[in-house]
Amino acid sequence: MTTDKVILAYSGGLDTSCILKWFLEKKFEVICYMANIGQDEDFEQARQKALKIGASKVVIEDVREEFVTKYVWTAIQAGLIYESRYLLGTSLARPCISVGLIKCAKENQARYISHGATGKGNDQVRFELSCYSLDPDVKIIAPWRLEEFTARFQGRQDLLKYASDNGIPVSVTPKAPWSMDANLMHISYESGILEDPSNEAPSDLFLMTKDPKLAPDNSVRIEVEFQHGLPVSVTVGDEIHRNPLDMFILLNKIGGQHGVGRIDITENRFIGLKSRGVYETPAGYILHIAHTDLEVFSLDKEVYRVKQSLQNRLSDYVYNGFWFSPEGQYVRKCIVLAEEQVTGVVKLEIYKGNVFVLGRSSPVSLYNADLVSMDKHADFSPSDATGFINIHAIRLKEYNHYQNKI
Amino acid sequence: MTTDKVILAYSGGLDTSCILKWFLEKKFEVICYMANIGQDEDFEQARQKALKIGASKVVIEDVREEFVTKYVWTAIQAGLIYESRYLLGTSLARPCISVGLIKCAKENQARYISHGATGKGNDQVRFELSCYSLDPDVKIIAPWRLEEFTARFQGRQDLLKYASDNGIPVSVTPKAPWSMDANLMHISYESGILEDPSNEAPSDLFLMTKDPKLAPDNSVRIEVEFQHGLPVSVTVGDEIHRNPLDMFILLNKIGGQHGVGRIDITENRFIGLKSRGVYETPAGYILHIAHTDLEVFSLDKEVYRVKQSLQNRLSDYVYNGFWFSPEGQYVRKCIVLAEEQVTGVVKLEIYKGNVFVLGRSSPVSLYNADLVSMDKHADFSPSDATGFINIHAIRLKEYNHYQNKI
Amino acid sequence: MTTDKVILAYSGGLDTSCILKWFLEKKFEVICYMANIGQDEDFEQARQKALKIGASKVVIEDVREEFVTKYVWTAIQAGLIYESRYLLGTSLARPCISVGLIKCAKENQARYISHGATGKGNDQVRFELSCYSLDPDVKIIAPWRLEEFTARFQGRQDLLKYASDNGIPVSVTPKAPWSMDANLMHISYESGILEDPSNEAPSDLFLMTKDPKLAPDNSVRIEVEFQHGLPVSVTVGDEIHRNPLDMFILLNKIGGQHGVGRIDITENRFIGLKSRGVYETPAGYILHIAHTDLEVFSLDKEVYRVKQSLQNRLSDYVYNGFWFSPEGQYVRKCIVLAEEQVTGVVKLEIYKGNVFVLGRSSPVSLYNADLVSMDKHADFSPSDATGFINIHAIRLKEYNHYQNKI
Amino acid sequence: MTTDKVILAYSGGLDTSCILKWFLEKKFEVICYMANIGQDEDFEQARQKALKIGASKVVIEDVREEFVTKYVWTAIQAGLIYESRYLLGTSLARPCISVGLIKCAKENQARYISHGATGKGNDQVRFELSCYSLDPDVKIIAPWRLEEFTARFQGRQDLLKYASDNGIPVSVTPKAPWSMDANLMHISYESGILEDPSNEAPSDLFLMTKDPKLAPDNSVRIEVEFQHGLPVSVTVGDEIHRNPLDMFILLNKIGGQHGVGRIDITENRFIGLKSRGVYETPAGYILHIAHTDLEVFSLDKEVYRVKQSLQNRLSDYVYNGFWFSPEGQYVRKCIVLAEEQVTGVVKLEIYKGNVFVLGRSSPVSLYNADLVSMDKHADFSPSDATGFINIHAIRLKEYNHYQNKI
Repeated sequence: MTTDKVILAYSGGLDTSCILKWFLEKKFEVICYMANIGQDEDFEQARQKALKIGASKVVIEDVREEFVTKYVWTAIQAGLIYESRYLLGTSLARPCISVGLIKCAKENQARYISHGATGKGNDQVRFELSCYSLDPDVKIIAPWRLEEFTARFQGRQDLLKYASDNGIPVSVTPKAPWSMDANLMHISYESGILEDPSNEAPSDLFLMTKDPKLAPDNSVRIEVEFQHGLPVSVTVGDEIHRNPLDMFILLNKIGGQHGVGRIDITENRFIGLKSRGVYETPAGYILHIAHTDLEVFSLDKEVYRVKQSLQNRLSDYVYNGFWFSPEGQYVRKCIVLAEEQVTGVVKLEIYKGNVFVLGRSSPVSLYNADLVSMDKHADFSPSDATGFINIHAIRLKEYNHYQNKI
Repeated sequence: MTTDKVILAYSGGLDTSCILKWFLEKKFEVICYMANIGQDEDFEQARQKALKIGASKVVIEDVREEFVTKYVWTAIQAGLIYESRYLLGTSLARPCISVGLIKCAKENQARYISHGATGKGNDQVRFELSCYSLDPDVKIIAPWRLEEFTARFQGRQDLLKYASDNGIPVSVTPKAPWSMDANLMHISYESGILEDPSNEAPSDLFLMTKDPKLAPDNSVRIEVEFQHGLPVSVTVGDEIHRNPLDMFILLNKIGGQHGVGRIDITENRFIGLKSRGVYETPAGYILHIAHTDLEVFSLDKEVYRVKQSLQNRLSDYVYNGFWFSPEGQYVRKCIVLAEEQVTGVVKLEIYKGNVFVLGRSSPVSLYNADLVSMDKHADFSPSDATGFINIHAIRLKEYNHYQNKI
Repeated sequence: MTTDKVILAYSGGLDTSCILKWFLEKKFEVICYMANIGQDEDFEQARQKALKIGASKVVIEDVREEFVTKYVWTAIQAGLIYESRYLLGTSLARPCISVGLIKCAKENQARYISHGATGKGNDQVRFELSCYSLDPDVKIIAPWRLEEFTARFQGRQDLLKYASDNGIPVSVTPKAPWSMDANLMHISYESGILEDPSNEAPSDLFLMTKDPKLAPDNSVRIEVEFQHGLPVSVTVGDEIHRNPLDMFILLNKIGGQHGVGRIDITENRFIGLKSRGVYETPAGYILHIAHTDLEVFSLDKEVYRVKQSLQNRLSDYVYNGFWFSPEGQYVRKCIVLAEEQVTGVVKLEIYKGNVFVLGRSSPVSLYNADLVSMDKHADFSPSDATGFINIHAIRLKEYNHYQNKI
Repeated sequence: MTTDKVILAYSGGLDTSCILKWFLEKKFEVICYMANIGQDEDFEQARQKALKIGASKVVIEDVREEFVTKYVWTAIQAGLIYESRYLLGTSLARPCISVGLIKCAKENQARYISHGATGKGNDQVRFELSCYSLDPDVKIIAPWRLEEFTARFQGRQDLLKYASDNGIPVSVTPKAPWSMDANLMHISYESGILEDPSNEAPSDLFLMTKDPKLAPDNSVRIEVEFQHGLPVSVTVGDEIHRNPLDMFILLNKIGGQHGVGRIDITENRFIGLKSRGVYETPAGYILHIAHTDLEVFSLDKEVYRVKQSLQNRLSDYVYNGFWFSPEGQYVRKCIVLAEEQVTGVVKLEIYKGNVFVLGRSSPVSLYNADLVSMDKHADFSPSDATGFINIHAIRLKEYNHYQNKI
């Protein structure tokens, strides 16, 4: 009898451990795939747990550098922000992990991929659309959407019982009354007590950032340098950091200490539900502020407007799981073209939750101090402005006449 | 001989005082118009100064309530923000003052209106397009764009000399090395030492907000209530405030004490120059944060996207001086329609430069806690998500096939 | 034993007759609903057929006037056009029929609604989203998406056999090698030999319009009058027609005789497939041409641009089945506001497939012949254009300098 | 005494001949520049005329190939269309001619450029913004905007008198009661009797296209092949044409004979006036129809939508004279990226004003006949559509609940 092989996106937690066991019951061979995408996890312990439950293999891959350079950097360069506030930390991780899943499936000749994402969320969509884009022939099994599975596991109690019956070790730490998802870019919190959007997030929820009120009284000053819209160095005092992963970890540390990058929002999920989420994204927030500043400084006014409309589109694509879609790929290429000119340095001060822009400079900005100066005429003839205004007024005067007609 | 009559937008400062005198030289009758739009000004002293110089009349009008209810409230409701960051404080004041100028011109049968705005700035455009929209027959004289005037007054020294020669009193306070413009909504700073975009704004520049580092260690909690997207009450502790002007002044006070609403940006002026501006907008910033939160919470996902595209357009219209344009009027009406549903309360905490959203509630939000809950199925069948994803994947799989073809 | 009641959108054809029988087999009570939406159909014969098969009731409703005034008129007013070419004839009919289905379900206390639309098409989506919008509690049964049904009826032969076995009369006319859907606005053709997008549509396919080559050698001239963007009269020679349904039927007749409104396109279905469709839309095409002409003539330039962006959005909403969605309702309201000003008359000549615009007039247009005249200065000072151009050139000159820097 | 040198965009007509003489009076050295951009003109005669009046040199440049390959082809590839109808024939010619003017100025060390465009039109803007983009240091003299010139030449009579006084030969053909502008792509007609937008264009106005009613009774069939969105061949019967200029001339001939590509519209000029124009664009119209068809056929649905939004922006840029602007250059690059996939053949039939699409094919289209076929399941599971619809319905059902709340 041939056995079907499934690559399971394994987290080490209760859900995916039970799913692993459940696949074994159904005579699948299960290879667990874990991406180290910067979450705080004991990967070796998780490996042992999976092997003990019965995984035929556990693949652990450090994708942090790839995550930073191919996904986070692209998001910063593009200025991605969902519904005016969310920096897309989870959305960016999913396509990155999917690449690992598909690669693992190919290397192990597995036809199936599985994950523990639920049926109401965005992550199922992001995983699956990414996987299908990368390999249209792969088959995905999402147990939390299978009648057979959900009928058997109606709640956490059923999972705990199943774990206990099957010798699956369960963490002794009591589960927090919310769920979370972590990676190098952010931690997101939702569900449980957060489902009431008027409930305040408790202060002990945050793991990545200090409470701004408990942050140091002394601010820190840094400089972030961009080339073509991508961060290339971070300078703190005399130290200059150029390695992307190091830079990002450093900014997470600084931002975390100073309580930077927390938001509490409701958002519209792709499937049409509104949900409430609390996020902390220290490095991402700092870089977003710096990049926005340099971008408006560098880009031509009208190019900026085109780019903004593309950024809004791409933010939706990425949130909805369309990273590898034709439109996702296309718009990213267009944005790279726009960012060619976004090169320079932004000075920032970070203090108790705030990221203040102090100044910026660029070797190629279209900013022209002589031209704008109150004290110089430069190539500017003030009387031209009269014509400019008068011509713009033609249409407005006509409209006034029209309004008097009706 | 008949004398031409001009309404001069008078500030009490050096420039408009010299312009007043210059008009008198040219045999105009000059009526000075001053709008009290919330700036810190001794209006009575300014009146005496103008009369002394030779104005035939000085009209001082308190437009603060009109400014808040017709302009600021509309901007908050619409979520206006220019180039991702600027809350448009000056841009909103110009059409409000223009209404006063045109009214004053009509009441005094004056054919001319004049102002002291410079030829490189946005304000000349905002004033003039607003005035022409309201009265296509008015004639506007902008001395700073007249060869005759600029040849005579090439710099501040020429103005000081002219003032001294003509008995125009000059403030003994030395001029700050930047220019500023203030109203109830904000103070803007530009020019002078700020013209180098890498120069830090000096800490003594800010007049409306305390340095966040010197702000109180205790945060303050407030609740802001909106109806149809408009602020209707602010609650601080046991006190509830419902008068628009009072609410706005109160939020300015709270925001000012806690160092909220400062930004340092470069922006693209309408006429195509890039300029650097520093702004402080305490109440505006608090309301913008609160409104954005409630809006995403309340509005349907797709309606929100349409509204966002309209808001981006309106932000440009307002910045560029097209408040009274056909497109400005039209888009405002559309936004009011969208905002019908934006009703509810947002809880905020204000602390050393930060405005944290703590929670929100609404009697009419589309948020459905049961539907989104991880613990309830409500009207949701998880297997539907499979079909949803598979259908969305069709296009992506086809694209993968295409890519293998080329 | 209680019997479940289903309202079946009945066409009288083979598919829905078999579905009717199939429901009876499954012990449903079936009420057949037929909307007379202008298709060429013998409704009485269809009624007898349904009753003979076993329908408990057949409801036939003439919705033509409602279709024209609430759906077609709205589409003309909004200028709806999908992917640059398709006038949305089928898409507009579906929400109109859905209103009838839901009303019928309410009046007959039926919980279920069913239709014969296939699983790959747009119409299933349009029917169901419309019904769910109007009544979230209704249950929809789409047999062509049920495993049980599709396994049994794998092709047309199975349906013919089932009909024959169950005494369901079958049309003796051989089926055309394509499928079609007709209503007052258009006939659409797809599938069969049209599935190859390089195959030419055969000349005997078209039922609503004459081959332009066989159309009369004499053109016809008409005038279409609009108020607030809605057609209010059509004048042909001395005759003036004001009843919406009559006007539309008349324009269909004229357009049909002169071979107007045929298109052959591929389009992107909502579910992500590309399909090929051939359409004929005589009256709709004539009105679309006339409305577009009057709209650009009447509306302010910038209002027109906002309206165009809303029209593009609404075209997608309508095509995808979101007529009754929040965004559909919202955008329609915005468009009505824009169209307030679109009032006037357009002169057209119709000739062998062409609709030529000959001229237009409006009592309220912003067109100002004096202002634009080469022979008059009107309120226009040519030297203003110099300033206008020079100011616009600032940004371009700066960009030239930048390009020389890099 | 040094003489200033001016490059005059010379047409051979009355206006530019008088301008030439006027410059000579003002002691300028004048070099006349004529671009052969496909207009029907006796260039040699014009050269002799200019030399006789006193031009120091006449430069005649055949830019037809450059015009087709760099401007017209780009417009076809981008799908440019202004305000839903105008194919931008004049707008595309202006930047092409400006390149020649600037090159001529550089080669002859001239600081000045001049043209005969009027102060109310678009062409002045297009010429000057193009020139300033290409050389920020050039000075442009637009006599029709100079007080000195317009005061002297208040109308045609003054020009005729000046010509007669100065021995400038004047055409004996009486001037048509409208003005026209011609190039390889189109002829535009405006002004004079066309200024009343309700006046019909007289039948003898059209020079490039036959009256459709007088066109041949036999249609012609052609095939147009595109690669990456650019036309690469036209096939008529057995003949295949591959040279861009030849292809375009051939299509003009075919389209002209069959009366294709006439429009009568009002449009919004950049400076805010509404004007009425009549255009004939035979080859451009044929190619636009063919390209649109292939584009929707080839491009991914969502990429098409992004591209459409860019095309709308670019159409405005080009109309307004911003061909060489940063945004113009940027958006063109983005569109080229999108068009990579637009490769294939479109079959057309041309008949008495109509261009009918008969079919299309592509080696790389995303069209998948198997997938869309009613007769095959392919990789499609009909039950997935149920989930797709149900998930989309969530939001609509919630909105229904909300509406019942208010």
